[in-house]
Amino acid sequence: MQNSSASLAPYFSPRGIALVGASTDPSKLGYGLARNLVQCNYQGVVYFINPKGGSLLGRPIYPTVMDLPDPVDMAIILIPAAGVANVLKECGKRGIHAVIVASGGFRETGDQGSKLEKELMDIARHFGIRMIGPNCIGLLDTHLPLDATFLPPPGPPPGDVAFISHSGAICAAVIDWARGQGFGLSRLVSLGNQADVNETDVLAPVAEDQFTRVLTLYLEGVSDGQRFVHEARKITRQKPIVALKVGRYPSGQRAAASHTGALAGQENAFNAAFRKAGVIRADTTEELFDWARALAWCPLPKGRAIAVLTSAGGPGVTAADALEMNGMSLAVLMPDTQVKLAKLLPPAASLNNPVDMLATASPEQFAACLQVLLTDPGVNGVLVVTPPPPMHTAGAVAKTMIPVIHNSEKPVTIALMGERLIQEAVEHFRAARVPEYRFPERAASALAVLAQRAEYLDHDRDSQFVQAHVDKDLVQKVLNQRGKNLGYLSASDTSAILQAYHLPGVPMRLATTPDEAVEFAHELGYPVVLKIASPDISHKSDIGGVMLNLVDSQAVSIGFAEIISNTQKVFPGADIHGVYVQRMLPAGQEVILGAIQDAQFGALVMFGSGGVEVEGLKDVSFALAPLTLQDAEWMLDNTWAGRRLHGFRNLPPADRQAVLKAITLLGQLSADFPQLAEIEINPLRVFPAAQGIAALDVRMRLA
Amino acid sequence: MQNSSASLAPYFSPRGIALVGASTDPSKLGYGLARNLVQCNYQGVVYFINPKGGSLLGRPIYPTVMDLPDPVDMAIILIPAAGVANVLKECGKRGIHAVIVASGGFRETGDQGSKLEKELMDIARHFGIRMIGPNCIGLLDTHLPLDATFLPPPGPPPGDVAFISHSGAICAAVIDWARGQGFGLSRLVSLGNQADVNETDVLAPVAEDQFTRVLTLYLEGVSDGQRFVHEARKITRQKPIVALKVGRYPSGQRAAASHTGALAGQENAFNAAFRKAGVIRADTTEELFDWARALAWCPLPKGRAIAVLTSAGGPGVTAADALEMNGMSLAVLMPDTQVKLAKLLPPAASLNNPVDMLATASPEQFAACLQVLLTDPGVNGVLVVTPPPPMHTAGAVAKTMIPVIHNSEKPVTIALMGERLIQEAVEHFRAARVPEYRFPERAASALAVLAQRAEYLDHDRDSQFVQAHVDKDLVQKVLNQRGKNLGYLSASDTSAILQAYHLPGVPMRLATTPDEAVEFAHELGYPVVLKIASPDISHKSDIGGVMLNLVDSQAVSIGFAEIISNTQKVFPGADIHGVYVQRMLPAGQEVILGAIQDAQFGALVMFGSGGVEVEGLKDVSFALAPLTLQDAEWMLDNTWAGRRLHGFRNLPPADRQAVLKAITLLGQLSADFPQLAEIEINPLRVFPAAQGIAALDVRMRLA
Repeated sequence: MQNSSASLAPYFSPRGIALVGASTDPSKLGYGLARNLVQCNYQGVVYFINPKGGSLLGRPIYPTVMDLPDPVDMAIILIPAAGVANVLKECGKRGIHAVIVASGGFRETGDQGSKLEKELMDIARHFGIRMIGPNCIGLLDTHLPLDATFLPPPGPPPGDVAFISHSGAICAAVIDWARGQGFGLSRLVSLGNQADVNETDVLAPVAEDQFTRVLTLYLEGVSDGQRFVHEARKITRQKPIVALKVGRYPSGQRAAASHTGALAGQENAFNAAFRKAGVIRADTTEELFDWARALAWCPLPKGRAIAVLTSAGGPGVTAADALEMNGMSLAVLMPDTQVKLAKLLPPAASLNNPVDMLATASPEQFAACLQVLLTDPGVNGVLVVTPPPPMHTAGAVAKTMIPVIHNSEKPVTIALMGERLIQEAVEHFRAARVPEYRFPERAASALAVLAQRAEYLDHDRDSQFVQAHVDKDLVQKVLNQRGKNLGYLSASDTSAILQAYHLPGVPMRLATTPDEAVEFAHELGYPVVLKIASPDISHKSDIGGVMLNLVDSQAVSIGFAEIISNTQKVFPGADIHGVYVQRMLPAGQEVILGAIQDAQFGALVMFGSGGVEVEGLKDVSFALAPLTLQDAEWMLDNTWAGRRLHGFRNLPPADRQAVLKAITLLGQLSADFPQLAEIEINPLRVFPAAQGIAALDVRMRLA
Repeated sequence: MQNSSASLAPYFSPRGIALVGASTDPSKLGYGLARNLVQCNYQGVVYFINPKGGSLLGRPIYPTVMDLPDPVDMAIILIPAAGVANVLKECGKRGIHAVIVASGGFRETGDQGSKLEKELMDIARHFGIRMIGPNCIGLLDTHLPLDATFLPPPGPPPGDVAFISHSGAICAAVIDWARGQGFGLSRLVSLGNQADVNETDVLAPVAEDQFTRVLTLYLEGVSDGQRFVHEARKITRQKPIVALKVGRYPSGQRAAASHTGALAGQENAFNAAFRKAGVIRADTTEELFDWARALAWCPLPKGRAIAVLTSAGGPGVTAADALEMNGMSLAVLMPDTQVKLAKLLPPAASLNNPVDMLATASPEQFAACLQVLLTDPGVNGVLVVTPPPPMHTAGAVAKTMIPVIHNSEKPVTIALMGERLIQEAVEHFRAARVPEYRFPERAASALAVLAQRAEYLDHDRDSQFVQAHVDKDLVQKVLNQRGKNLGYLSASDTSAILQAYHLPGVPMRLATTPDEAVEFAHELGYPVVLKIASPDISHKSDIGGVMLNLVDSQAVSIGFAEIISNTQKVFPGADIHGVYVQRMLPAGQEVILGAIQDAQFGALVMFGSGGVEVEGLKDVSFALAPLTLQDAEWMLDNTWAGRRLHGFRNLPPADRQAVLKAITLLGQLSADFPQLAEIEINPLRVFPAAQGIAALDVRMRLA
């Protein structure tokens, strides 16, 4: 954001618009833009500018911006790149602070274009101009109304879905496609090269629109990750945002010094960012708008138990499958509900969920059964599946069901299976803003997204970032002492930092004398284990280099001497560094806990199955710091390593609470010190419930 | 299959048809069926039967089947359930051997209906009648042509996709929907209750149709799993089969005595069965037909490297993502290809894959660039993505590209993004049988399925089921000796069976005397480990109850005595069973290998990450026995436990060959002895390359 002080409001409520590059040649984009501005029914004045002069669509063409009468709040520039800077200057002088540069020929074409683009930004900054583009197709607002794009008609019908896009071509496709899908757009912004205004800047101005009920984004990245999360998070408490983020693969590589780094990847960071911001991530363009319609039109469910209402067995089974695949469940109907259904339906009908009314089902039966299901307190929403009814028209079925749907506070989505025979029903539902899909799979995924949204709003209310009382100063001191000495921290620095944040250290010390061994044993707590510290010895226990379960200082002192002597006996020339003193740890489950600094989003915490196989198993989850306790719970729930902490077969329940605390503390540490590029505890041993955790190996890298 | 001797051929080439239950009331299904039979342009004679007599659609109505003149090969019965048996008898007497019972009121309605259905089958068997239904919507063949359904018009356009369905409602929906999707059907069969003819029976008769290029199935299960696999496998070598199998969830539970049993579930068995049969499994109805169109119309690719051709950046990125998500890769273009593209395109165009021709791209540029890409030997197929072109019509783009696509031996799929602006292009492509989709995601998944099909045909050519030389008689003897004594087999029986099939046994014996210990050590091979066998001692090594690395008989003999004496010293009253003699095993990777008998498909082999956590990690793969070596390779490739055998970080490469052999041998054992309900080796230790494997624990259950 280059000009944060200047408002973007004029883009969506300009008192007058200047089109620089208006053309009388219908094959030119400058003509298309002029036509759209005039035909869209925009209520302000529209001025055309072209040095050639003349008139267009019954209006005079002015030679320059300087010649325009007042008031003009916004200019759209669509002339060859070389001339744009000059026009931008004129806009500045003329007091126009909102400009769309639709022209291409800038950064997207190479170095020369980048220079031109930089020049534009210098001018924009000088005059306090906000600029959308260059290299974009413009914007539109169907309610103002305003169509400041050069796309061929028809424009999109008015609606409640806003679309913000990094791709102009996708805008063109979506505008055309939306009509066929039966939903309208509220505002649309094509961002182009984002020299100034970026996707994050337009979130709030678009969300403020009273007609917009859901924001959809096509993203190829974000300009400033942390600001995006911050801004989006504010909006998603009020209105849902659904995003399609592309470019998953080529840029997914990252230098992989740690397991955490290797696994994090850009996509996991984006997923964590979207989760934190409450942004729903779609995997395909169709999902993006399938979900947007449901979010715009449906009340939210209070749970995931769904009833299926249909008139045939096959569609019912398909719907049940689709619900389960999407993480929803089939509601168990109350006996009372079944009694009511029985009165409405023939004896052969199925009164269990999925409710199969049989092929003879009339429009009245559809409506009455739907009403019964929506009244059942165990039903959170209904999925209606209608193949072409053999005895009635689908249109009549739709018409009778719509009032029932409108009167309910529970969501209903419709799978209208077919094409011609269901066309009338499709139109009724669209007009009534009831989301309909061709097959149960898509209708089920829409219900799942509604549930996801409801859960987000519920959870968010009472969640707070964990901010434990930690010794930040101490860590700062440790890091300051290293000065410019980057790379991996020493064991003692690592240990000090962990302690300052109440994170478990590695309960192991290297002793070089028997007295030191006793001192460390004392510090770590008995019983301890001694192990020879020598790079030459691999099978330590085979040569008497390990002693277990030493319970007092005498045993440690004697043990130290014995181990050294045993080793020297077998390997007289061995390079002996001393003896490791280690607290004898109870058995436990082992996990990995790590954090890296994501270039876009900052501190990213990872939890999962640890050991050497962590990269192969990929049983890990990610969240952006700072973390709430719910975030940490979510990380456990989303990995086998985390679920296993509850206990599994012969594995006893482990100390989940200690792990949750460690996750949030690691997040706090990583967020407090962005210079800690990577922190990895692998493995972290988790003892049985209430017995704590221990770090068996920790690495921290300063960058 | 109740009447396998009688052919199903008359259903698809009847010389004459009798409709029993023809009605003159246009609101009745009996009228709809009569209308469809007459209007479909069927070339044989159609007779109407109704005791009321009269005439219908210009034809006389006969009172009974007995009154019909010859020739009649097929009868369709659509009268109340109670009267069907009698009509079926008349058909038998009249020599009609192919009957469709469209009437409902049978097994689907309960016990009384089941009785009626059984009665029908008795009659059918007596007269050698084949019966489709009851409770179905009939069948159709658009090329014969014949429409023997009662569905409202219009019927489906003629095409090359056959559809076989367990749900009549889904048939009705698909027929209607297909038209909107721009593909036609060849044959369609609604199976209803499958009292006689089932999904497997109709595979071959449908596949034999010269117009059918791909078979699609909507399945709620299969009637005989092994026969289905056998029949489908024969067909998929010639024509592709794509199946949507629903009912995944409720029936997925299975009594879980072993990990293998708990993990296998019905869905994994179906996946394994489809894989073995070469059937492509779709997850949604849309996928089913998205893929069917591509399989019917496109040549198969020789690899997974795809070029993307588009006129804008965003659609290109979306397409690249979609390809990678679907397991395809972006082709690396030859320098020569880029030179040729450069000559065709403006300087700002992107000549790397995705090739972005810019928004100005003309129909001629689309066609010429497509030609260049298809000529590149490194390109296996092309995904063309066209947003609505701002300067040209999408229709013109389609028209110029179609000849290029038709002349290529590589597949091309099209993502035509939009609605109205691309409608003409959609129609051109459909008429030319070029698969088009609205978004790149679906076009990419179609290419992936073509690649999957190509790989199946390639692999299948040289694959053979592994049939090792084993001692089947010995196993039979062991099992016979147990008689009716079911449940888990003893260690010695288990060991004998494993040995007979060259599978690794558990290298451990329980010795009760020093001499026995020496004998076992000899048998197992030195060095060995001795361990006290006592239920009272848990920390065996703490009390001197373990001796490692014993290299000869003397050491074993002395060790035995020492271990007993050590134990008695510490625990005087301990219950000592003897001493375990175990081969001292090298370190290795641990996996699980298991087999169960699936109720539908028989011997189902599982491989994956073992240990106690196998059910949590779910890192397992399944294949139906008997297995080819390729099946076993596939099982390794599809699990982390299998990929890890190649070595990973500090894990050395393990003996993959021994694992592959063990997988196929276990498959052979499980297939040879269906009474072995469950076999599970967990863990199976895999030593470094060429050093073999060892079973650490084996359980076999006889049922």
